[in-house]
This record gives sequence, structure tokens and C-alpha cells, in this order.
Amino acid sequence: MAARKPSVNRRKFVGGLALAGIAADLRAADPVPAAEDAHDVTRTLARYLVAADPADLPEAPRKAATRTFLNWMGCAVGGSRHETVDIAVAALAPFAGPAQATLLGRKERLDILNASLINGIASHIFDYDDTHLRTVIHPAGPVASALLALSEYRPISGRDFVHALVLGVEVECRIGNAVYPSHYDAGWHITGTTGVFGAAAASGKILGLSEQQMLWALGLAATQPVGLKEMFGTMTKSFHPGRAAQNGLTAAFLAAKGFTSSEQPLEAKAGWVRALSTAHNYAEITDKLGKSYEITLNTYKPFACGVVIHPAIDGCIQLRNQYKLTAEQIDRIDLRVHPLVLELTGKKTPQTGLEGKFSVYYAAAVAIVQGAAGEKEFSDKLVRNPVLIALRDRVTATPDTTMGEASVHVTITLKDGRRLEKTVEHAVGSLENPLSDGDLGNKFLDLTTAVFPVEKSSKLLELCWNLENLPSVAEVAKAAAA
Amino acid sequence: MAARKPSVNRRKFVGGLALAGIAADLRAADPVPAAEDAHDVTRTLARYLVAADPADLPEAPRKAATRTFLNWMGCAVGGSRHETVDIAVAALAPFAGPAQATLLGRKERLDILNASLINGIASHIFDYDDTHLRTVIHPAGPVASALLALSEYRPISGRDFVHALVLGVEVECRIGNAVYPSHYDAGWHITGTTGVFGAAAASGKILGLSEQQMLWALGLAATQPVGLKEMFGTMTKSFHPGRAAQNGLTAAFLAAKGFTSSEQPLEAKAGWVRALSTAHNYAEITDKLGKSYEITLNTYKPFACGVVIHPAIDGCIQLRNQYKLTAEQIDRIDLRVHPLVLELTGKKTPQTGLEGKFSVYYAAAVAIVQGAAGEKEFSDKLVRNPVLIALRDRVTATPDTTMGEASVHVTITLKDGRRLEKTVEHAVGSLENPLSDGDLGNKFLDLTTAVFPVEKSSKLLELCWNLENLPSVAEVAKAAAA
Repeated sequence: MAARKPSVNRRKFVGGLALAGIAADLRAADPVPAAEDAHDVTRTLARYLVAADPADLPEAPRKAATRTFLNWMGCAVGGSRHETVDIAVAALAPFAGPAQATLLGRKERLDILNASLINGIASHIFDYDDTHLRTVIHPAGPVASALLALSEYRPISGRDFVHALVLGVEVECRIGNAVYPSHYDAGWHITGTTGVFGAAAASGKILGLSEQQMLWALGLAATQPVGLKEMFGTMTKSFHPGRAAQNGLTAAFLAAKGFTSSEQPLEAKAGWVRALSTAHNYAEITDKLGKSYEITLNTYKPFACGVVIHPAIDGCIQLRNQYKLTAEQIDRIDLRVHPLVLELTGKKTPQTGLEGKFSVYYAAAVAIVQGAAGEKEFSDKLVRNPVLIALRDRVTATPDTTMGEASVHVTITLKDGRRLEKTVEHAVGSLENPLSDGDLGNKFLDLTTAVFPVEKSSKLLELCWNLENLPSVAEVAKAAAA
Repeated sequence: MAARKPSVNRRKFVGGLALAGIAADLRAADPVPAAEDAHDVTRTLARYLVAADPADLPEAPRKAATRTFLNWMGCAVGGSRHETVDIAVAALAPFAGPAQATLLGRKERLDILNASLINGIASHIFDYDDTHLRTVIHPAGPVASALLALSEYRPISGRDFVHALVLGVEVECRIGNAVYPSHYDAGWHITGTTGVFGAAAASGKILGLSEQQMLWALGLAATQPVGLKEMFGTMTKSFHPGRAAQNGLTAAFLAAKGFTSSEQPLEAKAGWVRALSTAHNYAEITDKLGKSYEITLNTYKPFACGVVIHPAIDGCIQLRNQYKLTAEQIDRIDLRVHPLVLELTGKKTPQTGLEGKFSVYYAAAVAIVQGAAGEKEFSDKLVRNPVLIALRDRVTATPDTTMGEASVHVTITLKDGRRLEKTVEHAVGSLENPLSDGDLGNKFLDLTTAVFPVEKSSKLLELCWNLENLPSVAEVAKAAAA
């Protein structure tokens, strides 16, 4: 696990999406230099958080919160038996507190601070969690990990949980919007750095913090950023959302007891924004609070690899299903792709499952053979399977600068001479073509059945869909224990 | 405690010291821009740490380590009953693990990770801890807090403890030297940000990490920096050295179990140095390892306030003792001071003990009346004492640009017409005029007897002086419990 894997440069990718007209204001935050005259940015945020009422929450963010939670749960259970989690539990259990909270997918129980860390780590293992495309933040990890652990210490209704999750995601994504991309370019893993704020805000809302206490919680969050991009390709990448959850939850508990902190932690001259970013747009944090919801912009990966090769996988699966294709029928597969695809995933002869995630050739082949590209499809065993190797070697990919990054053109030539073609404009899982509830459920089951029996997985899925109506969310946590 | 206090700009002050010829290379790190071509900076450090042998440690750093530890212990015990510590313990105890380690000056015992946090907080409460003048790092907090907690989990001999303390201080101060002042100017509280590395290195040395594991520990440290200067004046400032200790200790335990991380966390393109500083000098980290020891440059404050008014206090105490002065004899006190003294500590009518620390007038008065300026001399009660108020109002301070920052000229005019004068070139506690062992012991007793009976304090002092010869350092921790 020590070996470095090439990291997908998602910012560049998202930048490309902007060019494709998907989100024209993506880089709006960039040109504004850090100012010294901003006031009450953090206070405005704290005031909103304290006053927000779950009764005012529209259906769209509520629905998005349930999908976000469900996707996070599937990823966390799926990743829960990974070596990364085993090591973290073994290293920290000797110092952990009372058995207050569930480790998802496992038998151990730890105190809620450690549980939030471990569950946050597990949820990011496969890099299969949610994505706020504009900032490449994975919003659920820090916030849901803190909230679910907290729910086993202090009862939280589904309604309040959904509300706090929406608020936590709002805080981290708004702060991300304000400093992206300069903050990300400076080297920070934005999920960890903004995630601490999200976890603190969500936990603080549940703890009923006053405006003053919420300010302190955000101050304590600001002083504990987690995550450098340099850690990508190592276990420490998954540590980031987990530690962000733990730090944010800690911040909320300290603030609740009166531990004082800065009241302008974001905007002050020596504050978070100036220390961690060269530019910002504070309006992204303070405008339209309660009128728009970042969680409605959250997306869920249908495939367990970088988004850059999702269009190719999508196109191949569509043709496969339409024509009921098998590997034996196929003479060759020709892809026309955005140039970034080859730059990031041009590995011709992957030897491991992880390397398979960086091979558009393997990805296309496995999409045909398996009709899927979940975590199971990126196993060492499948990557070494002779049928897949043979098909992979018959895939070509040609860079095409006219092609959008969310698009692909697939041509499959059959041995009988037929040519099948498919153009994908917006790959499944994008904002324009979101994963259906059914597909999200299938992804969940694909992940959780690697750990739990089918029946237990199905029951857990049902609980997650019913999140908002649960009298106590701790019920979900308990149902997700091994 | 929520009110902001003016923060002493120590960098500026130390910059002035440079002008005074005390440390001419203070800003050597400044002009080198962050390069992309550095290699093996972290590996060189890790290799040194793993190979270092206590048998090779010269007497000067060993002696300095004992003084550093003793000063830290006095500060931590002295601060242990402060509201800041009470709140942190109350907030976190419900989630803490087994009663493995002592909270200095208190009855509670917590797991070693939480104990390192709490003791680190306590040691910084009074801002009375040690200072590595070149970087304004307070080196002991993160490193000693981690090591002492660890000593109660895994026996550590005095010899190994001293060695690990020297190495931890070496790592944090060298990294600090490499990025100061641009890192500090960017808004980071350098004690917390570099302290994580120091705590990880020292703990990792005790845990016997391999070179590979030590690299990972430093990587895990890099991804968890703690501390923005914006928190100065709030309880969160003291949180920084504590959390740095806890994060570093956590990093070492994770790495020991094989939790992978970057192997170039400092120097990589997306690494710590580039994210947290605009400039660096990597040679400060890698040159002369094992040949020079930063801990020998550590200093200990004789007075419980910013170093900027130490010369005035020193001069007044010297005249008081020489002439056995009382407040009643004195007509007026006239100080000639560096201009920064008035800028930072020009408060004419302080109302609280904390405000007294920012009043050169009060500081001079209390030095005459009490012959000391420890934590006890900055109580609310003394600041409001009529004798002190009357004397304080007879103090003048005149800025003099020819005066060095470590210097003062004091003229005391007595009611009988006599004029007594004193020039201080280097205030006591500076590198040129270090606190004697006797004075360090008196400072220790002054702090600890506010918490412990005199006999217990004296016994603890004796144990600290004997640190290097102890079979198990846990003995000191136990002797420092309430």
C-alpha cells in the first residue's frame, strides 16, 4: 500500500466541465484576492446555523440528504474490512473510550470520537463516495461520520439528522466554493480541510449550540485543518475525512462547554482563509443562506474509479445491454475520448485491481464482460483474468480535443463485421444524468454484500431510504454493525 | 475569556533582536522560494532519527533537555487548574479511554492520547513556557506532553526520555528554521504546526519505528497541522501545543502498525512546506544533523508576561534588591525603552491581571513591590491594589530608538532626592543571560506551589532535576498528580 498511485487531477477535469458549459461559473472564486476588510462572515454563518429550522427544509435537499447518507453508508460498510481500517482500529483501540458507537461493518464499538474517525476512513477507502463537483469535496465523509456516531450518544430523530446533514454539507461546500480552486491548488485535500467545519456545524446544531458557541466551534474547526493532497495514493488519504469528522465533533463538544476561540476564524487577517488560500469569494459563504442548498448538487459515482473514465464505461455497458454482447463476439473496441482520459488512465497492461482503475482499456473490457464497474470489478483476480486481458488488448482509445470530458464515442466492431456505435453526452452519475434511486440501491448492495449477507444488506438499505422518518437514527448504526 | 487580548508580535520583536546583533542570521530562511526539486529531505531526517543513539548525546543538549522538561513541568502544573483545562477535561472525559496517564496537577487520569492533549494545553496557559527565539516556537509543549504520557504506557528510562526530547525539539525547530518567518507570517501558530512533527518524531523514536515507519509518522504529522495565530487571546491558543502532542503521538502509533503515508511529506510538490509557507531553506532541516542541537538555544521566561517588558522588570528588580527599595521611598520611575515596548505594552490603567501583562507601568511597579513578576504577580487582586496603582501612576516610559529590544535604562528618583540608575543590556532569560538553575527552580516552585503543598513541589522539582537518571520517567508523572 506504500506505493504511490497516480492521482486523478479532478480540478482540471472539473475545469473542463466548465468549458463544456455545464457549470459556467466554476471559477468565479478565483480572481478575488484575499481582503482584509471582511467582517462577520463566520458570524453570519453561525447565526444561520443556529436559527435554521428543519420545518423550513424543502423536499429537494431532504431527498438529496437521504441519497447522500445512503451512498455514504454503502461505501463505509464496503470499505470497513479493508487493511487501512484494520490498522487504524488496531493502533487506536488501546486508547479508545467507552463502547459508545458502532464501527460500520465491524464488531468493535468505540467511543464516538474514535468511531467518527474510523467510519470516515472506511467511507473513503474505495474513492467511491459522493462528489460535490464544483469543489471536488466528498461532502458526506466528515459530516455523516460525525453525526452517526453522535446519534448513538445523544438520540437524534431522522428529521433532525437530515437537517444537520444538510447544514453540515452546506457549510463545507460553501467554504469550499469560496476558496476553490486556489485552496486546492495550494496543496490541500479540500475534503479534509473544509470537512472539519461541516462536521463541527452539523454536530453543533445537534448539540443545540448558541450563536456564540457555534462561532467557537467553527473557530476550533479552523485551527485544525486536515489533509494534504500529497497523501493521495496512501492510506492517509482516507484518514482525512475521518479525522475531519473527529476534529469537528471535538470542536462542537469543546465549544458546548465554553471553550473560547476566535469569532472571525474564517475572515480575520490571521484566519483560515488567508492562511490556506490565496483567493476567496466570501459571498459564496454568506449569500442566499437558506435559499439554496449545496447538497442538491451532490453526485454519486456509479463506477468505482475516477470520473474521467465513467463515460467510456457507461457507453460500453449501454451497447452490451442493448445487443447482449459477449467478449467472444467482439473484434475490437474503439473509443474517442477527451485527451485527459489517456493522460490519467492510459495504463495499457494493469497488473492489479488498483492499476485497473487507471486503465481505460481494462475499464472498457470489464464493462463489456461484467456489465458493471463496481468495486468487485476492480479486483486483482479479474484484472488478471485471460478473457479480460484478451479483450482489453483489443481496445483502442484516441484523444479528441472536440470531445467533452463527460462524453465519449464508442465504436464496437464485431467479428461478424457489424459496427455498433454509441455517443454518450453526459455519463451516468453526472449532475445532468444522476444515478437513479434504483442504481444507487444497487451500488449500495454491491458494496455491502461483500461484507454482510444479502438479507442484512437489504434491510439496512431499507432503513437508509427511510432515514427521515426514523425516531432515532442510532437504529441504522446498530443495523450496520457486524 | 472570549475577549481578545492584544497579541505580542514576537516575530517583530525577535527581528529587532537580530538588529541588536544577537542572532544575525535570523532571517536567513526568508529569501529562498519554495523549490520543486528537493528530494529526500524527510528521509534524511527519518534516517537520522532512527539511527540516533543516546550514547552519542553531548552534555550540553542533555542538560538543556532537563531544564526544558523542568520548565515545562512547572508551567503545566501551574496551569493545570485553569478554567481552560477544566473545560477541556469536562468536554472530553466522557469519550476518553482507560485511565492510563496522569493529568498533571489534577486527580483525573485519562488515556495517553487525551492526557497528552490536556497536559499540552495546561503547559501553555500562562504563556510562560520555553521559547526557541529564532522561530518563536515553544518547543516543550508538543514534545514533552506526548513523551510523558507515553512513559506511563510504555516504560521509558530517563536517558531515553532525554534523548527523545532532544530529537523531538530538534525536528520541530529545524522545520521551523526552514520556513520561518514566511510560515509564521502566513498566519500559522508555529508551535502547533511544527510541534506535530516534533511529537511524532519523539514518540516514534521511543516506539522504535523503522525508517519507513518514521517517514509515515512524519507524513501523518504533516497532514494534521494545528494552529492559526488568529486564535491568540482565546483558550484555543493553548489548545495548539496540546493537540500537536496528541496528533504526533497518534501519528507514531498509526505508523508503527503500518498505516502508510507520503514519503516526502515536507518537500513534495503538494507537501507541507509548499502548502504552509511561501519560502523555505531545506538545508536548515538536513545540515549538521547530530552535530548541532536546537535545544541548546531554548530559553525560559523569568517573568510571566511578554518578553518585550522583561528588561524593565529585570532592571527594577535589580535596583530594588541593591537598595532595598520600598514603594513609599519612590518619587518616580523613568524608563527608556525600545519603541516596541510602548506599542505592545503601553496600557496605562490595567484593570485585570491579564491586562497587567500588557502594561509596562504596572510591570515596573510590581517588580519594585514584590521583587518578582511571576504568574502570582499578575493577579486581578494585585493589579487593583492601591499601593501598586499609586506606584504604577508614577512610572513613565519614553521610547528610544537607540535602545535594543533586550535592553532598558531605568532611573528611579527617591523622595529624598537620590537618583538611582541601571542599564540592562541583556535581560535575564535571554540567550546571553540565561536563567540560572536556581532561578529556574524558583520559577518552578512559584508555579507549582499555587497548586501543590511546598513539600510535594520540592520533591517534584528534585525528580525533574534528576530526570536523566530515572529508571522510569513515569515516576515523575505520578509525582505530579494531585
